[in-house]
Amino acid sequence: MASASLTLAALDAMSTPDFTAALGAIYEHAPWVAAAAAARRPFATVEALADAMRRAIEEAPDPQRHALLAGHPELAGRAARSGHIEPASVEEQAAAGLDRLSEAEYARFEALNAAYRARFGIPFILCVKRHGRASLLRSFEARLASDPETERRTALAEVFRIGAIRLGGLVEGAGPLRTTGSLSTHVLDTVRGRPAAGVGVELHEIVSAEDSVLVARAVTNADGRTDAPLIGGRPVPIGTYELRFALGAYHRAAGHDLPDPPFLDIVPLRFGVSDPEGHYHVPLVATPWSFQTYRGS
Amino acid sequence: MASASLTLAALDAMSTPDFTAALGAIYEHAPWVAAAAAARRPFATVEALADAMRRAIEEAPDPQRHALLAGHPELAGRAARSGHIEPASVEEQAAAGLDRLSEAEYARFEALNAAYRARFGIPFILCVKRHGRASLLRSFEARLASDPETERRTALAEVFRIGAIRLGGLVEGAGPLRTTGSLSTHVLDTVRGRPAAGVGVELHEIVSAEDSVLVARAVTNADGRTDAPLIGGRPVPIGTYELRFALGAYHRAAGHDLPDPPFLDIVPLRFGVSDPEGHYHVPLVATPWSFQTYRGS
Amino acid sequence: MASASLTLAALDAMSTPDFTAALGAIYEHAPWVAAAAAARRPFATVEALADAMRRAIEEAPDPQRHALLAGHPELAGRAARSGHIEPASVEEQAAAGLDRLSEAEYARFEALNAAYRARFGIPFILCVKRHGRASLLRSFEARLASDPETERRTALAEVFRIGAIRLGGLVEGAGPLRTTGSLSTHVLDTVRGRPAAGVGVELHEIVSAEDSVLVARAVTNADGRTDAPLIGGRPVPIGTYELRFALGAYHRAAGHDLPDPPFLDIVPLRFGVSDPEGHYHVPLVATPWSFQTYRGS
Amino acid sequence: MASASLTLAALDAMSTPDFTAALGAIYEHAPWVAAAAAARRPFATVEALADAMRRAIEEAPDPQRHALLAGHPELAGRAARSGHIEPASVEEQAAAGLDRLSEAEYARFEALNAAYRARFGIPFILCVKRHGRASLLRSFEARLASDPETERRTALAEVFRIGAIRLGGLVEGAGPLRTTGSLSTHVLDTVRGRPAAGVGVELHEIVSAEDSVLVARAVTNADGRTDAPLIGGRPVPIGTYELRFALGAYHRAAGHDLPDPPFLDIVPLRFGVSDPEGHYHVPLVATPWSFQTYRGS
Repeated sequence: MASASLTLAALDAMSTPDFTAALGAIYEHAPWVAAAAAARRPFATVEALADAMRRAIEEAPDPQRHALLAGHPELAGRAARSGHIEPASVEEQAAAGLDRLSEAEYARFEALNAAYRARFGIPFILCVKRHGRASLLRSFEARLASDPETERRTALAEVFRIGAIRLGGLVEGAGPLRTTGSLSTHVLDTVRGRPAAGVGVELHEIVSAEDSVLVARAVTNADGRTDAPLIGGRPVPIGTYELRFALGAYHRAAGHDLPDPPFLDIVPLRFGVSDPEGHYHVPLVATPWSFQTYRGS
Repeated sequence: MASASLTLAALDAMSTPDFTAALGAIYEHAPWVAAAAAARRPFATVEALADAMRRAIEEAPDPQRHALLAGHPELAGRAARSGHIEPASVEEQAAAGLDRLSEAEYARFEALNAAYRARFGIPFILCVKRHGRASLLRSFEARLASDPETERRTALAEVFRIGAIRLGGLVEGAGPLRTTGSLSTHVLDTVRGRPAAGVGVELHEIVSAEDSVLVARAVTNADGRTDAPLIGGRPVPIGTYELRFALGAYHRAAGHDLPDPPFLDIVPLRFGVSDPEGHYHVPLVATPWSFQTYRGS
Repeated sequence: MASASLTLAALDAMSTPDFTAALGAIYEHAPWVAAAAAARRPFATVEALADAMRRAIEEAPDPQRHALLAGHPELAGRAARSGHIEPASVEEQAAAGLDRLSEAEYARFEALNAAYRARFGIPFILCVKRHGRASLLRSFEARLASDPETERRTALAEVFRIGAIRLGGLVEGAGPLRTTGSLSTHVLDTVRGRPAAGVGVELHEIVSAEDSVLVARAVTNADGRTDAPLIGGRPVPIGTYELRFALGAYHRAAGHDLPDPPFLDIVPLRFGVSDPEGHYHVPLVATPWSFQTYRGS
Repeated sequence: MASASLTLAALDAMSTPDFTAALGAIYEHAPWVAAAAAARRPFATVEALADAMRRAIEEAPDPQRHALLAGHPELAGRAARSGHIEPASVEEQAAAGLDRLSEAEYARFEALNAAYRARFGIPFILCVKRHGRASLLRSFEARLASDPETERRTALAEVFRIGAIRLGGLVEGAGPLRTTGSLSTHVLDTVRGRPAAGVGVELHEIVSAEDSVLVARAVTNADGRTDAPLIGGRPVPIGTYELRFALGAYHRAAGHDLPDPPFLDIVPLRFGVSDPEGHYHVPLVATPWSFQTYRGS
């Protein structure tokens, strides 16, 4: 995500064409949304700006709103492959791994996309930044079974989510839009009664029983924490994760005489994320012979 | 393992040929061990019997003891494949999965067997019941680097372990030989303050990062325990294991309103076993948002 | 409690006067209950015998049943003080500490007894073995506010509880009467991954913010347990308890270099008992810097 | 403690008499220490200032240094009672409860003071802000058994500690002097997987088996924490403490149907503080049927 650099003051000072150019890509192929918002300046907060853009869509004539939905690129679709989509879309789809699908996976998306478009007359729209790979496919399948009216509302809600995240990445002070979550950990050594420093940690997304993807890797610092959250500044994609801690190596380095193999060596903590904008703090409290975790704060 | 059925009294009452026939397979291709022990009857305990057989080997002339080692079947070797080994060996190797190797694995064993025999002049001998697949290969490689004198002692110790386990499976009252361990669990629901009944549990042996083998499957009873230990009545093979608890399904059935996916769904507890004759009690103490384990008693 | 020594067979074989003598004290000053049960012999189980005695009371004419209630000794009353009650009552009241009241406490009981008798026309009847000192007084006060019909049923239920416990102490095989509970603990050392042996444990009943009574004292054995439950073979009196573990001394003896004072020295676990016939297992899982407990099984 | 208000810049700009007046009470009855430090201005940091004052003492002629020790007020002594000591001393002794001693306690201090002065020729000097009542008496008794040379060094070290804390309370930016610690808590509800808000918490100092003193009282906020540390901005007096959490009331308010009495009602966590400048974070992780704590970070 591009780091936020535009200020509200700068946006308020722009000409309408400049404003429209600056925010035209927030809603895919629909610069008219930005243009409509331009007329409602000035904005006291980023929330007010986001609201104005959302209201422009909600109050637009049906055909125009339908065109906005219809113009959205398909997930892992031909447009994405050939580059005919907004750069933000390219980045979002890539982050979800949709640019690295196997031929079989690509074919599955093609089939789902076709079925969805046949049923609802618009492409399948999902805020991919909020979903892991498994969740994305489950959502796709679940929504294929929805009724058209519900589905149109769902698609619009996803469009707003995509727009909010893009806005959050572009304009300063967008925190209250609540478009980011976090995933963090810390390790506590209850043999010595202090934070465990130097523990290797990996975060994996569990895609299926056979397939997982390394998301982040870090080493705990003197506070037993990682210097930065393992996921931060963006939504935590819905899915199942596994934190893996190199606890055996830590305890051996601390002078414990462990058996071979140690009772606890690589310790996995598996947990699910359902709220991408939530804060998931998942600590490890451990000795060489025990460990625990909980959703912390 | 055949259930123990012979009694010491019956063994004491046998003719020497019958006794030798009854215990002749305890030491592979070496009925002279049983014959020597026959002369030392009666035995007050199974330990005394095991001791007599061990002493017969230790006090045998070098060439005879060497022949015993040399006559042992190779692991996953040609003799095992063609059936020229004791039925007990067939069963032991099968339990370790050595009868189901891929061609590549079989080739690896062939190479290790050849290298070992070239270096030490005897086949590689290991009490396979005490090892998981990964541990077995690690031991093989580690012992290849040993010196001949140490290795001869190690091989003999393994022969004694094999003999003790076979004896334990054949003769009643062999508990004090300490040839068995156990692996058990129980699940405690600390939301309700009572054992968690009806929780699905699987025990997997973790062979490598990609490969695991289902060892046992059970459902917890009203005491939160499985009706029988997940491993019992035999050594717990050295290795890395994962208990997997269907905690999400349990909590949903208990009426908890869980998110999708739940924070805790399938909960894996990964741990190592280094002492095959030890008792590994690995409980799960859990709520929908926390869990812990420890080596219990 | 006298250890159970009578058998059902012996009771069945007795003459009616002997039977009545043997069981005449089960219901205070009411040998007619035992006499009525004598006519219903033989009994297949102790439960059937208990049932027969209870039915004798339920089916007795009102005045006779009223006389049974009216004849019950008051708690901490003059009869108890002067010895005019059944030896079982003496022992029960003594176990609850009612023979060691201060003058102020004695006066309070006198006042409550008088108020109760004035309101309901019978003495206050409570199965004191099921109550700690604080719970006993709270029950007394709560029942004073009850209505006569409810209270008569409550008094009768307490009479049956007293009878069941006395029967359980007298006749063999009375387990199914469920007249006993238990309170036990064990200590687990998660630094070393094994039971903590040699830990001093005290069990105190917490009577009030200022007042507590030592109930039991023990040292953990090699299994981290006490050789016998801290309370067993009798109801666990309703109340608040504190287990106190000498954890600091244990860890120092185990070679830990603890600060002065240690972070954890005497560790109190405070908990309430509401079900006197329940099994309260309250373990301590600890390191020098952490501990936890839960209601176990 | 008076909130820090003097700046280094202001101190550097003062005349020597003003500087000496401003810092003259840092060392009891010894304004010469401040005067000596005045000559070493300017100071880059408060540490440098503290150091200069300490060096002035260390480099003073023996009789002058001895006079500084000899001039210190006794703990709970006549001077304290009659007001002939620095206001800072009055406040420090009062904070430790030394102005509210019973006659018996006062007599005990008198005896200890007399014995100490007889043995060492100086009054007993202790940085009372770093000690709870029990620890203070234990230190007194332990130091009475020390040898004169060790004791003189110990007394001087305590004088420096007192000076550092007074300086920390007077001059801005004194953090690096490390004259403060903290004691804090938070409560986590693992039934709901979030911080427990609205839990009443009390902190008591445990003076003896019979005697405890309420130190602080708070209610957890939405983060499960208290708005301010229970002890902060000062040393945490060495001693034994008990946190008491109103967990039963919290769970009842959260809709749990608890027995009467609940298994967990008022939960005490007892722990020792040995490092007054340390950070003691002592959380409670709980359900209605389990709880745990650890020294956190």
